Amino acid sequence: MSDLSLVPLNEFKRVQTMDCSAVDRSRLFATLSRINTLYMIARAGSGHVGSSFSSLDIVSWIYMNELRCDDIYYSSKGHDAPGLYAALIGLGRLDFDLLHSLRRIDGLPGHPDVGTPCIETNTGSLGMGISKGKGMIFARRRAGKETHVYVMTGDGELQEGQFWESLASAVNQNINEITVIVDHNKIQSDTWVSQVNDLGDLEKKIGSFGWHVVRCNGNDAAELQKTFAALKTVTDKPKLIIADTIKGSGVSFMDYSSREQDEGSGDALYQYHSGAPDAETCQRAVDELVQSANSQLSVLGELPLRLETGSRNQQRPATDPQRLIAAYSDALLAAAEANPDLVVLDADLVKDCGLLAFRDKFPDRFIECGIAEQDMVSQAGGMALQGLLPVVHSFACFLSTRPNEHIYNNATEGTRVIYVGSLAGLLPAGPGHSHQSVRDISALSAVPGLSMVEPCCESEVAQLLAHCMNDRRDSYYLRLVSIPCEIPYRLPDDYRVETGRGVAITDGNDAVMFSYGPVMLPQAVRAAGFLQHEYGLGLKVANLPWLNKLDPDWLRGIIEDYDFVFTLDNHYIRGGQGEMIASTIAALGLTQCPLVRHFGLTTVPLCGENNEVLKAHHLDAASLAGSVAQNIHEAREARIEQRPAVDMTLKS
Amino acid sequence: MSDLSLVPLNEFKRVQTMDCSAVDRSRLFATLSRINTLYMIARAGSGHVGSSFSSLDIVSWIYMNELRCDDIYYSSKGHDAPGLYAALIGLGRLDFDLLHSLRRIDGLPGHPDVGTPCIETNTGSLGMGISKGKGMIFARRRAGKETHVYVMTGDGELQEGQFWESLASAVNQNINEITVIVDHNKIQSDTWVSQVNDLGDLEKKIGSFGWHVVRCNGNDAAELQKTFAALKTVTDKPKLIIADTIKGSGVSFMDYSSREQDEGSGDALYQYHSGAPDAETCQRAVDELVQSANSQLSVLGELPLRLETGSRNQQRPATDPQRLIAAYSDALLAAAEANPDLVVLDADLVKDCGLLAFRDKFPDRFIECGIAEQDMVSQAGGMALQGLLPVVHSFACFLSTRPNEHIYNNATEGTRVIYVGSLAGLLPAGPGHSHQSVRDISALSAVPGLSMVEPCCESEVAQLLAHCMNDRRDSYYLRLVSIPCEIPYRLPDDYRVETGRGVAITDGNDAVMFSYGPVMLPQAVRAAGFLQHEYGLGLKVANLPWLNKLDPDWLRGIIEDYDFVFTLDNHYIRGGQGEMIASTIAALGLTQCPLVRHFGLTTVPLCGENNEVLKAHHLDAASLAGSVAQNIHEAREARIEQRPAVDMTLKS
Repeated sequence: MSDLSLVPLNEFKRVQTMDCSAVDRSRLFATLSRINTLYMIARAGSGHVGSSFSSLDIVSWIYMNELRCDDIYYSSKGHDAPGLYAALIGLGRLDFDLLHSLRRIDGLPGHPDVGTPCIETNTGSLGMGISKGKGMIFARRRAGKETHVYVMTGDGELQEGQFWESLASAVNQNINEITVIVDHNKIQSDTWVSQVNDLGDLEKKIGSFGWHVVRCNGNDAAELQKTFAALKTVTDKPKLIIADTIKGSGVSFMDYSSREQDEGSGDALYQYHSGAPDAETCQRAVDELVQSANSQLSVLGELPLRLETGSRNQQRPATDPQRLIAAYSDALLAAAEANPDLVVLDADLVKDCGLLAFRDKFPDRFIECGIAEQDMVSQAGGMALQGLLPVVHSFACFLSTRPNEHIYNNATEGTRVIYVGSLAGLLPAGPGHSHQSVRDISALSAVPGLSMVEPCCESEVAQLLAHCMNDRRDSYYLRLVSIPCEIPYRLPDDYRVETGRGVAITDGNDAVMFSYGPVMLPQAVRAAGFLQHEYGLGLKVANLPWLNKLDPDWLRGIIEDYDFVFTLDNHYIRGGQGEMIASTIAALGLTQCPLVRHFGLTTVPLCGENNEVLKAHHLDAASLAGSVAQNIHEAREARIEQRPAVDMTLKS
Repeated sequence: MSDLSLVPLNEFKRVQTMDCSAVDRSRLFATLSRINTLYMIARAGSGHVGSSFSSLDIVSWIYMNELRCDDIYYSSKGHDAPGLYAALIGLGRLDFDLLHSLRRIDGLPGHPDVGTPCIETNTGSLGMGISKGKGMIFARRRAGKETHVYVMTGDGELQEGQFWESLASAVNQNINEITVIVDHNKIQSDTWVSQVNDLGDLEKKIGSFGWHVVRCNGNDAAELQKTFAALKTVTDKPKLIIADTIKGSGVSFMDYSSREQDEGSGDALYQYHSGAPDAETCQRAVDELVQSANSQLSVLGELPLRLETGSRNQQRPATDPQRLIAAYSDALLAAAEANPDLVVLDADLVKDCGLLAFRDKFPDRFIECGIAEQDMVSQAGGMALQGLLPVVHSFACFLSTRPNEHIYNNATEGTRVIYVGSLAGLLPAGPGHSHQSVRDISALSAVPGLSMVEPCCESEVAQLLAHCMNDRRDSYYLRLVSIPCEIPYRLPDDYRVETGRGVAITDGNDAVMFSYGPVMLPQAVRAAGFLQHEYGLGLKVANLPWLNKLDPDWLRGIIEDYDFVFTLDNHYIRGGQGEMIASTIAALGLTQCPLVRHFGLTTVPLCGENNEVLKAHHLDAASLAGSVAQNIHEAREARIEQRPAVDMTLKS
């Protein structure tokens, strides 16, 4: 079943002009927005339902009742974006057609981006919201504008140090034009906040920083009305509302609030944090929401809700794909069994990082650090100093940057730490640039004694992890693509991981292309096929899993007698593997050097469906083949023109 | 006058075996340690007197009375290292001769490093201490050891978010074997903590996180004895002592506690935060300390203190040096006058970053963020979104890494922010690797729309800043060397900064060397002199202030007809300017390519006197000249052997 229900714009208009109280209007508006949120996420195939639903009553109330002309609202957590979009679309502030294009190019990004109307700031990792608000207020004051800034944060987000870092100066600088709303839904990515890293007495904590703190039911418009009204009288302090909410609020089976918080281990993970519910689940949820809307309408003497339908995007699932995270999960277990000093640290991504099996098997060797990457990496440093081998996990985008200095600090101590960054690279492209880790190689490549590697298939995951474990000297950064990938190659049976070396996986006489990982290496191999069939050119593709190390002898052997070398990074070209390869070639002292060209990202990655984004960045196989052919053609033309008239000898 | 007083080891031994109370012994020991701290700093020519003195009573007490065999003590702030070293030397835990080699190669690093006996962990920027301690305790528990960890922190350090990030999990994980001592001396780098970013009610704040908090006079051994004794009974919580101390305690004129906290502006900066006092000041301080020791000894019926003398290292001051920070200070003022939207943000380094003049002239456009780099950069992002042009300052080592993701996040919003990182590069080498910013180019080079530049002299500072201001599109990272530098060149009168381009400043036919900045460019130019005179080789030196951008046409013109290209980075080779140059050369498609060799750092930089460190890394002019000559010689030999027998044509 691919039909999905949606609420058309005129139904939102009806609600906005209905003769009813502000509270009733906001309630109804939020319910309608929930239906469209579900539509957007189901159509896109991914998105955060739980967090959108927990915050939607607040978003609806603020937009419909609090925001004056110069005021600003934004979410610091960002993954509640679908809910926010649904509300903005319902209000007519975003074009209605955008409802159909969540997580698509030229549509609505997975996380907020200022390129979208009404979106005030981009999100990154968590905790930046209050800081940005302080800056905005400073600027608005200078411009002579009276502005109030409303910032939504998550509650897991409060584990980030920057949240606390940002509190003090707001008081000291009298930044009183800010109201922070903590969407306190009690569940973060992995499980209950209280089980990850309990927040303790939040009112006391935040109050002790000099903020005015109040608490209310954040899913009840009547309470929100009272709460915001009362805050109007507080003008001498920054304000914070702890809004007790329910993740998945509005749909009975998405609401876990009734469950026992201690009911279980990994099996008790909340199911509706991210990802699209299946068709049947979606329909059940919509049915509930429609029933809820209709009973609200009926009380108000209004006609029932009129829905329209849209269709779910059909995406072909990968056939027999390689799943690197699952392979890593197995390899980690094996490594842990062999080495009792191996301990695992996680930053609230136990499932995404493939750690459930380890946690269940070695609970005493598993440390859940919460959304606190700096604390996690420094803890790992302390463990390593005392003889343990910590293996540290998060998404690559956060792990490489937020504790960037901490990784360097550990490296200066000469200890061994293994860092594992998942969700690496351009794809999935749906979450948007805050999650597309295409700068991590550059951000860490200069850390002394830190080798960076990326496997291109499941078997290489195991080999590389074993290599990390057996190396007695270096620290490692293991870069993992998270999406399932179809790969059109198989590494040679006798291939063994060796430092700074890779392996050729196709033959070809005209050019060499280096790449790595299960997203780009397949593009390179497919490009080789196109080149052969469409341009009559032979491309030798080499898999080089080493991102910041290169054996010059191996390199020399691979490129010898080739006029053209191409590199293909799942990363910005600047600071990626390609620059290292080019730099090493330049140092080989070849008398005749190949032309080197880089493929990779040069601009902030687009958000969209995976294949459309690859293509838009000209990194799909067909585009690559075309570029390679053109480069070879142009260079051959140019070289023939420039061929030196005399024998080439050394000038000296 | 170059003689300096020091306390010999046998006087420390006398104190340790004296028949007196633990309190008296600790007091006396701390006084003696202060004398030797002053000796070390005066001899080294730099170091942190104020912070060493405020903490020395605590350090002395802990080492003499609290630490059991498996216990661990370290400082998270790190710049109190001279005081700690003096105590460890007095206790015989460090070799006495190390007293003479603070901030020297093979001596005692400016900030803690695990290469030194008894130093448990390295410091980086502030705020890592508790996190590391938690990791150590986890490891010690696994090893079945009963360990108590004592961590000293600063009070300005509490402005860092990681401090707060690290508090919650200590409680949740029952990490009760930790005692944090906040050296609450009320003065951070710039001025009073309360004026930078007031900490508020610390007891309430930290207590609200579930820690057991007590407060005492941290310069009074008797109070310390009572406080630590009382904490022994608290075994169910992590513990924190707010130790009220006096910066510079022990020497009347270094103690600012009696001054009014609001007495003034920039002129009221504390004088003894860092840097060595002059000879006369030093002697006055020693006289006071000796008098204090002698009166303590006299009360105990002991003979007066017997001192020895050592000498101050004589360093030739630079002749007519270029001072880039001062030049920047002037250029910033000019820019600010021209652009009312320009605002300045600082992270507690107003003097070091050259911002005093701006702050005095434009107090409304100056934001002191405190030691809170993430908060600062995100605030700047908020300001930029609202139309201001924020210019953001800190030391390069911290600015490029701690808010690394935040800089990227701002970049994804397409706004303009200018980042200015001072104390960039290998020198000064005295503070040690936590402050030697040799990874910042790499850490930020891939940020889209962020151009990175480094001026080589005062006039180029002004030109580059003007260029940043006039560019309507890009953000900038301005990398500034802080030490005064003698430069053996003058940029051509008609030189104008152009994107991605530089300028040749010496002629030479055999090779080209690219470099930048007032530390390395002089080495390159002097190396050119050596090469001419000693090896008969001509080196063309090019100044290229662009660190992550390069105009291929300009590059082609500079290297055309040269067989050898050298690059010289004030940075790790990996990810530095040199790799970008090599990579660009490889993409030029030259039929005959030069041999490219990189100079720069490959290992964690050494701590020491500037010239000795340059030499130890083979980056001084003489070493460079030798390496260049050898490279050219070897390559010419090899190329003559390999000269192709046939005309070089394209294979295809």
